[in-house]
Amino acid sequence: MSKLTDVPKRILIGRALRSDKLGETLLPKRIALPVFASDPLSSVAYAPGEVLLVLSVAGVSAYHFSPWIAVAVVVLMFTVVASYRQNVHAYPSGGGDYEVANTNLGPKAGLTVASALLVDYVLTVAVSISSGVENLGSAIPFVTEHKTLCAIVMIALLTVMNLRGVKESGKLFAIPTYIFVAGVFIMIIWGVVRGAIMGDTMKAPTADFTIHAEQGGLAGFALVFLLLRAFSSGCAALTGVEAISNGVPAFRKPKSKNAATTLALMGGLAVTMFCGIIGLAMATDVKMAETPAKDLLHNGVPVGPGYTQNPVISQVAAAVFGDGTFFFVVLAAATALVLFLAANTAYNGFPLLGSILAQDRYLPRQLHTRGDRLAFSNGIVLLAGAAIVLVYIYGADSTRLIQLYIVGVFVSFTLSQVGMVRHWNRHLRTEKDPAKRRRMHRSRAINAFGATLTGLVLVVVLLTKFSHGAWVAVLGMVIFYVTMTAIRRHYDRVAEEIAAEDAPGDEAVRPSRVHSVVLVSKVHKPTLRALSYAKLMRSGTLEAVSVDVDPAETKALKTEWERRNIDVPLKVLASPYREITRPIIDYVKSLRRESPRDAVSVYIPEYVVGHWYEHLLHNQSALRLKGRLLFTPGVMVTSVPWQLDSSEAAKRRARKRAEWNAPGAVRRGPVAQPKKEKAATRK
Amino acid sequence: MSKLTDVPKRILIGRALRSDKLGETLLPKRIALPVFASDPLSSVAYAPGEVLLVLSVAGVSAYHFSPWIAVAVVVLMFTVVASYRQNVHAYPSGGGDYEVANTNLGPKAGLTVASALLVDYVLTVAVSISSGVENLGSAIPFVTEHKTLCAIVMIALLTVMNLRGVKESGKLFAIPTYIFVAGVFIMIIWGVVRGAIMGDTMKAPTADFTIHAEQGGLAGFALVFLLLRAFSSGCAALTGVEAISNGVPAFRKPKSKNAATTLALMGGLAVTMFCGIIGLAMATDVKMAETPAKDLLHNGVPVGPGYTQNPVISQVAAAVFGDGTFFFVVLAAATALVLFLAANTAYNGFPLLGSILAQDRYLPRQLHTRGDRLAFSNGIVLLAGAAIVLVYIYGADSTRLIQLYIVGVFVSFTLSQVGMVRHWNRHLRTEKDPAKRRRMHRSRAINAFGATLTGLVLVVVLLTKFSHGAWVAVLGMVIFYVTMTAIRRHYDRVAEEIAAEDAPGDEAVRPSRVHSVVLVSKVHKPTLRALSYAKLMRSGTLEAVSVDVDPAETKALKTEWERRNIDVPLKVLASPYREITRPIIDYVKSLRRESPRDAVSVYIPEYVVGHWYEHLLHNQSALRLKGRLLFTPGVMVTSVPWQLDSSEAAKRRARKRAEWNAPGAVRRGPVAQPKKEKAATRK
Repeated sequence: MSKLTDVPKRILIGRALRSDKLGETLLPKRIALPVFASDPLSSVAYAPGEVLLVLSVAGVSAYHFSPWIAVAVVVLMFTVVASYRQNVHAYPSGGGDYEVANTNLGPKAGLTVASALLVDYVLTVAVSISSGVENLGSAIPFVTEHKTLCAIVMIALLTVMNLRGVKESGKLFAIPTYIFVAGVFIMIIWGVVRGAIMGDTMKAPTADFTIHAEQGGLAGFALVFLLLRAFSSGCAALTGVEAISNGVPAFRKPKSKNAATTLALMGGLAVTMFCGIIGLAMATDVKMAETPAKDLLHNGVPVGPGYTQNPVISQVAAAVFGDGTFFFVVLAAATALVLFLAANTAYNGFPLLGSILAQDRYLPRQLHTRGDRLAFSNGIVLLAGAAIVLVYIYGADSTRLIQLYIVGVFVSFTLSQVGMVRHWNRHLRTEKDPAKRRRMHRSRAINAFGATLTGLVLVVVLLTKFSHGAWVAVLGMVIFYVTMTAIRRHYDRVAEEIAAEDAPGDEAVRPSRVHSVVLVSKVHKPTLRALSYAKLMRSGTLEAVSVDVDPAETKALKTEWERRNIDVPLKVLASPYREITRPIIDYVKSLRRESPRDAVSVYIPEYVVGHWYEHLLHNQSALRLKGRLLFTPGVMVTSVPWQLDSSEAAKRRARKRAEWNAPGAVRRGPVAQPKKEKAATRK
Repeated sequence: MSKLTDVPKRILIGRALRSDKLGETLLPKRIALPVFASDPLSSVAYAPGEVLLVLSVAGVSAYHFSPWIAVAVVVLMFTVVASYRQNVHAYPSGGGDYEVANTNLGPKAGLTVASALLVDYVLTVAVSISSGVENLGSAIPFVTEHKTLCAIVMIALLTVMNLRGVKESGKLFAIPTYIFVAGVFIMIIWGVVRGAIMGDTMKAPTADFTIHAEQGGLAGFALVFLLLRAFSSGCAALTGVEAISNGVPAFRKPKSKNAATTLALMGGLAVTMFCGIIGLAMATDVKMAETPAKDLLHNGVPVGPGYTQNPVISQVAAAVFGDGTFFFVVLAAATALVLFLAANTAYNGFPLLGSILAQDRYLPRQLHTRGDRLAFSNGIVLLAGAAIVLVYIYGADSTRLIQLYIVGVFVSFTLSQVGMVRHWNRHLRTEKDPAKRRRMHRSRAINAFGATLTGLVLVVVLLTKFSHGAWVAVLGMVIFYVTMTAIRRHYDRVAEEIAAEDAPGDEAVRPSRVHSVVLVSKVHKPTLRALSYAKLMRSGTLEAVSVDVDPAETKALKTEWERRNIDVPLKVLASPYREITRPIIDYVKSLRRESPRDAVSVYIPEYVVGHWYEHLLHNQSALRLKGRLLFTPGVMVTSVPWQLDSSEAAKRRARKRAEWNAPGAVRRGPVAQPKKEKAATRK
């Protein structure tokens, strides 16, 4: 039956690519960096612009606050990186924020982090794809004209790629990421050379524009609020920093040390690029407005709704390299590609987190087997669906989507850091070695500072962005939280219901005999096989049962039964309304009434077919009958399969599917990590 | 699993109404008439108008041909009624056209008739509902303004009613049908009294309009063609006549005689009403045009696209009774109601024919059990879906839909009558009694005449309407025919594949022992039950198998196993990738390799739940595993159910559903008729 629902998926996705089991290779730092850093590094493509955009509300004069905001972001980045370096050392098994919060702060905190991260994965896809499309659009106008469509197509493409389980390799991530990083650095250096040394005047395409201040002359609390809001937008540069803490097992040894180094490198690169772009934007007089159509003026006239506000990085590139030049196009393409890779990281993270949550019974249990294709498929489709809805509603506008972003990340940052403080407290209680205690004290101080700062940022983000859209993200978290709590409660209730008692009460009601019933419609091979299998079970009585739906067929069946001398009695049930299920159910119930201590075993010959449409033609009555029989206590149902020739095709398909490899394997490392916390302290 | 796909249905449809088994009452003629006649009688609501409409192409002068067309329709009606009176006597078991064609002309003819009837059922819904909405619209302008929407809502309403299995009663049909018939007769008589006796001048709302002849001065072949096309449209009055021949078992005794009398009555009523309305339309100067906006002129000016052309019956009623009077509104309501009832007959006929076709393996086998709710549901949803598509495409315009109509009916008429001629030929070969032979000769003559005339009409309909839309109906038939042939071929191939050989070859490969495997994840009641059931099957070896997905859980399982002293060995399979299916499949295969002559019996504890969403939380791994296991030869899979408390709810629901009664029971009579032809000759 599950075949049927798979069909649309199968048609769309085709067969998974054949590939060997992945993940037997560990990542050197030079590959690990791009694998994990595409998300935080790519955010420099939109974060600086968002800062300017918010500041523009108070007019272009407010732009001079932007270096200070950049400094705040840098401080925050260093704090977060320093904090997560502690996580990486303390949880070398790759325990992410969920595990840290769950272990140290309890299940409610864990579930909050999980809900926050799930929402944030969705937003990572929506924001990165939208921004990627905008960057691509700065080089290809067609893309800008059909922004929403392009974004949705891109999400669909990523979805199909991930569903197919395209084989990943570190190089796939390395090349565009390094091109992007190199491009941005060349731009910064060349900009400095041209501006400061050669004395060129570089002008961004919007340099001659003026900005109409929506709220001119802001001061006092209103100004502080605006600055905080700009800072909140800038914080988008920090998303994805936590990813490395999940991926420690994928690093080469010494794993924790290498992961910590990579984390530091990533932080360093990100802030340099962020500050560089802000600096160049100031130098080249980039103008960004929140509602450009109205507030961006050219020669004193608003530019109108036809105007497309290109991303800061592309405006800066146009100023430094020249619009449409080779370097400009390469940088635009690399930026878009890195943003798409960043979206792709969510495709790995979302189902993985789902499988961890399933392990803790917050999501359907079957999702928890690692590398299970169906589990990943469901997660991927859910993620893509939610992202498409957001992109559609917000018209693939990264500026509007960013209002929803970051809440989740900072919820997760804060709870994870608080959890780490608890972690050190616990270890300090038992640790005697003064050197180790000293290191623990230092780690605890770092994590405590991280917790305070990220907590503060979380409050700032919530205050400044709640009404701008952050409430949507909060609502999403609440929905995830409530759903997962309900699922967990259901599992707990069932577990209680089915818990085996210590007293052998269950054994007392154990049936003494089995009455076996083989369902028969015609004498053919599947029936004969079912009969011969049933005969092997020599315990109790055995009879064949047929329903008289068609008198002629029943007569033929009886004749054939006698002619073949089948040594099993054949019972024919009357069915005036040509039903099949009801007479059989009634008969089985009557058997149970006659001898309540016996169990009834019903054998159903079942056809195994190879194509989905064949399911419509076979086994439907059997399936429905089985569904009804299972409600009758004291009954077990045995399917005796008969493989039709066509089933070979399905078997081959199933084999192919089994060779599928789960996306994100590169990031997760080679072996199944043990679930329980390896409470390692820092070496 | 089938639960899952049922969910949307269940939400929409709710629980079926509780009702006792129907059909224990036979129909007296006065009830049988309205039950079977709503379809042919209701067509007088649109057929006369269609005749005038086609004639108007040649200008209003062509209207004087309409009495001749009415005569032709009357002759045809008498012929068809006389022919079907022979069917009714020859096949008192209620063999419809499909059975007659199938038995006498072979399966291809039978399948052609079936395809034709299936298409025609869809069109009956589309045409009757559209016309009903138009008639309702003549009294309630809102309905006309939202024609397509109203028609679709009406179809949806009928669908839900039929899916719920609302209890039918003959009275439900009798009251509106008799009101409608009485209303039309009163109108005809009152019209004659006012016009001929009192000398009143009755003017239809369109009496003062003139018609712009699209093709003025038609003559010769073109005129004949136009008259034939008008006649083809008039033939819509004949649809549904064949229904009684399916329903003979529902009549009181003497069944055949009563059915034949009812058929004659129905024919008489239909033609009287048809001619009466045409006559009144001529007397009151009704003007109808094929494209009224352009060709209908008022004071020499086209009425334009805002004009609504009301049905002839409503225009005549306005002329005779006065627009908006009590009688006018009652007649409009009764007309609409009878048309909706006519649509409802298709809801009974379509799934019934489907179940007969399933019996002959042209459709999925499970559809053939009579009164099976799911079979009816699928048929009803398919019918409604197709009708909605047509109504949507053709904007609920009965005039455009009628172009597609009738082809199917006349294919069915013609083949059925040809089949009847063969039937009599066959019986004449063996019959000796001269009196009986005389009657048979007479019957054969009638059927031969019927076959010739209906065949001729079929050719006319195809020639005059093919390019106007009849090709759509033909295409529909071809699709049904090809699909059903393919299904039958599949079943035949499978039947051949699984046919038991006479040599006991199958018995030779019969396994000698059974290796039983109980799948275990935790020690709880479902597991213990599965173990105790498996232990009852004392044949061969028994072991419990668990997959080591989580080392901690596996350890706990082992401990508990030992603590409880369970006397079944526990085997733990390694699973480095946290998979469940693959290790088990591999293990079962290894068992088969070691002892190829043994069968493997796998016991899976299964949860029985009460709500659809619980299916998402339980058994998914088990179901998938089962799906894979069935592909492995020599394996049988036993589900040992554990009924969770919540399953009680589902059990209650299932019981309620089982009490559902199939729509159309009134028409079909009380008992399951024997399938094989009771070759009765006329008494």
